[in-house]
Amino acid sequence: MLPDAPVPSDRISRIRSGLPDLRVDAILFLDMKNIRYLTGFTGSDGALLIGKDQKTLLVDGRYTRQAQGEVGDVAVVEYREKADGIESALMDSGIKTVGFEAAAMNVHSYLKLKSKMKRVALKPISDEISAIRTVKDETEIARMRKAAEISSRALTDVRELIKPGVREKDIALELEFRMGRCGADQIAFPTIVASGANSSLPHAKPGSRRIERGDVVMIDFGSVYQGYHSDETWTVAIGNGENRQKEVYAVVKEAHDRALEAVRPGVPCREIDRVARSFIESKTLGEYFSHGTGHGVGLDVHEAPRISTQSEHVLKKGMVVTIEPGVYIPNLWGIRIEDMVLVKEDGCEVLTKMPKGFTVLN
Amino acid sequence: MLPDAPVPSDRISRIRSGLPDLRVDAILFLDMKNIRYLTGFTGSDGALLIGKDQKTLLVDGRYTRQAQGEVGDVAVVEYREKADGIESALMDSGIKTVGFEAAAMNVHSYLKLKSKMKRVALKPISDEISAIRTVKDETEIARMRKAAEISSRALTDVRELIKPGVREKDIALELEFRMGRCGADQIAFPTIVASGANSSLPHAKPGSRRIERGDVVMIDFGSVYQGYHSDETWTVAIGNGENRQKEVYAVVKEAHDRALEAVRPGVPCREIDRVARSFIESKTLGEYFSHGTGHGVGLDVHEAPRISTQSEHVLKKGMVVTIEPGVYIPNLWGIRIEDMVLVKEDGCEVLTKMPKGFTVLN
Repeated sequence: MLPDAPVPSDRISRIRSGLPDLRVDAILFLDMKNIRYLTGFTGSDGALLIGKDQKTLLVDGRYTRQAQGEVGDVAVVEYREKADGIESALMDSGIKTVGFEAAAMNVHSYLKLKSKMKRVALKPISDEISAIRTVKDETEIARMRKAAEISSRALTDVRELIKPGVREKDIALELEFRMGRCGADQIAFPTIVASGANSSLPHAKPGSRRIERGDVVMIDFGSVYQGYHSDETWTVAIGNGENRQKEVYAVVKEAHDRALEAVRPGVPCREIDRVARSFIESKTLGEYFSHGTGHGVGLDVHEAPRISTQSEHVLKKGMVVTIEPGVYIPNLWGIRIEDMVLVKEDGCEVLTKMPKGFTVLN
Repeated sequence: MLPDAPVPSDRISRIRSGLPDLRVDAILFLDMKNIRYLTGFTGSDGALLIGKDQKTLLVDGRYTRQAQGEVGDVAVVEYREKADGIESALMDSGIKTVGFEAAAMNVHSYLKLKSKMKRVALKPISDEISAIRTVKDETEIARMRKAAEISSRALTDVRELIKPGVREKDIALELEFRMGRCGADQIAFPTIVASGANSSLPHAKPGSRRIERGDVVMIDFGSVYQGYHSDETWTVAIGNGENRQKEVYAVVKEAHDRALEAVRPGVPCREIDRVARSFIESKTLGEYFSHGTGHGVGLDVHEAPRISTQSEHVLKKGMVVTIEPGVYIPNLWGIRIEDMVLVKEDGCEVLTKMPKGFTVLN
């Protein structure tokens, strides 16, 4: 177990220094992962107000004591009803305009809050703060490294189950159980174990299908350690390893390796996607690569930056992203190769552990 | 495995006949459980438009084929961007006012949609439709019965682990694994295994604490079968079963039994809460019963009706609710006894299976 580390105080400072650009006096955070990032609070409900003179966490009665233990010098205020709590925190605060996370508040709450707030303007904020968690510090990286280790240790433990006659869901169940036994707080997302034609769907749910000789088996899995996620996909052939599977695997692997090679600070995420995609296209498999090349990982399993054709992000040192090109031949099988990597000064470090060469299991 | 059953067509008819009272021409559903209830669609994203002449499910490209296979005679329309899809569905439909589920739409999406819609008024709807799923039909009841059976079978299998020296999280992990092996689609919620003083917190997370002689162990668990949840809490004493534990258990059990006894169609949910609460209060333990007596269960593990002091609901035949009084002695231990029951013509049937007499394990 890694030691608990206090939340660095510069996170709240960064938010404060961004207030003038957003033209607000304060921001009301409602996304629980952002609140955890800024304060250390791990509860499931609450709100955080950051202004020039405010740093106040609002929680309901279930969480008061827990919050006081977790959040250092952030003020903790208990509410009975969230909208009332927010109103009280703003009243007489001198705040005239408060930004709020528009994607993390539902319309019901918004209308209720709006009707209560007479003298404070509510300003929706979305993309402007989506990048606050993208660059990871040493503590965050250590946790993600550990999550990746736990996951691959668990998969190595269940490797013997990946064979003809075993059901997809039994492999998924056993893998999730082992991740827990290996020290995961929880699983990062519902594990994908897709065999045969099921692997031609990028997001298949594990079902009752039994693995057969000649199958491809795609396993997309991850765990959570001290709040931080890992994300990895291991794809193997069963029994013989047909030539066509081997060929397509080699294409996806080359696209994956070229993208890894391109990762370094200053490179647009779009460019990483282009590197992987253009190689797959050059092998006339472009139409079968139906999703983006990757995404950021951290307190959420999917977070900024996106690595896709549309991405506006640029890689920075300390970002942790997935590189996961895939080729899905309809009704036949699919191959995805996914690693989670840390952007470093001069390239990247692969945090995930499963070997990614073409693997045939018997 | 129970046979797949088509969604009864009267569900959409009921929504349509309620439109005039809501003063809208159509309702836009965004809650995925409500969409599943009304159409059978099991995907993770989409929107459903129900009007006098419309029943249209909007989905993104991942789900088009799946939706077409699941939703019978509901029209399926694919979108690239959800707000655009909704706008297109409404354009030229003759709909002037559309109600939407205000608690299931975030402000970011709402503002985007509002800016697109020039000629259609958006009307937020919340509590008016919260009760559409409360009365269960035979198919739904059969699934919940099965979920409850799976859960108790799994707990019976791990009963031998509930003993001094075993960690809470290892029991939780093993129980979740067994629920999967016994046929659950997934777990209903993160399992609570709380021992010793941890059981004095109603919603403790399982941790590294090892069970000791003299502990109370509280296990709150459930599984999902074909979309439907079970919810049950089993509380046991370890080793000796102190007199004080036995006494408080008897009080909670009597409150639980009296509440069960009071369940029948026509009784206000508030009254069920009162029956349990007033008995606990009569034993001067009222201050330690810090939550409501129960809640509806179905496609969500918590859904309408609530059984609490504030509830406005009245029990109807076919509702499935929990009865779960608890007493939590701060820093010492807590006892909760929870069953999930079906409201019947002349009373109720308990769907959950663990025996609820005072149990001491060694």
